[in-house]
Amino acid sequence: MYKVKSKIWIEKDGELVFGDGKYELLRAIKSEGSISKASRRVGMSYRKAWGYVKAIEERLDIKLIERKKGGIDGGESFLTKEGETFLKKYEEFRQGLNEYVDKKFISVFKFKNK
Amino acid sequence: MYKVKSKIWIEKDGELVFGDGKYELLRAIKSEGSISKASRRVGMSYRKAWGYVKAIEERLDIKLIERKKGGIDGGESFLTKEGETFLKKYEEFRQGLNEYVDKKFISVFKFKNK
Repeated sequence: MYKVKSKIWIEKDGELVFGDGKYELLRAIKSEGSISKASRRVGMSYRKAWGYVKAIEERLDIKLIERKKGGIDGGESFLTKEGETFLKKYEEFRQGLNEYVDKKFISVFKFKNK
Repeated sequence: MYKVKSKIWIEKDGELVFGDGKYELLRAIKSEGSISKASRRVGMSYRKAWGYVKAIEERLDIKLIERKKGGIDGGESFLTKEGETFLKKYEEFRQGLNEYVDKKFISVFKFKNK
């Protein structure tokens, strides 16, 4: 009946660097192998998706995406090794957080036992 | 340089029950002893603040605020004992979360050591 929800994001000098929305975009790029397909899947324009990728790369100072240009769809895109590592770290971080929040919520509020 | 931020909230049947904004309101009522003063402090109208209190009480099924009517300012308002307990639990929950997030963030991303 009661559920706890959380949102989390990383900032650098007060600016958003990365969060769940951007995570979904990177994950979609990884599975679709294409920024344009990924952007459609997460419901944003190609232009916006591309801008997001550039902004994350700049703020994290790592190259996330490798592009093979060409084709009508803007070519294929892959996560770099560093990109994969970052995504995995974020998953580990996020997963741990979800578990923590759920456990702590139940232990503090005891809603489940009511 | 990098910082992790989090937002957390409790839902019941998909509806927002309680979160950091409502926590700030309740804390302000506690310290001001007045819903109208508290609402000014957190920057919302008296009407909205009162509506929030009623909605939280209804969704949590506990009485949070005791009112002593009268005066030009709408009278004094106090947190009930149940309200105090709820606030303390939320603080415990939130505080633990902040600590967890910071620790996990540093351990996963190692940004501090870069």
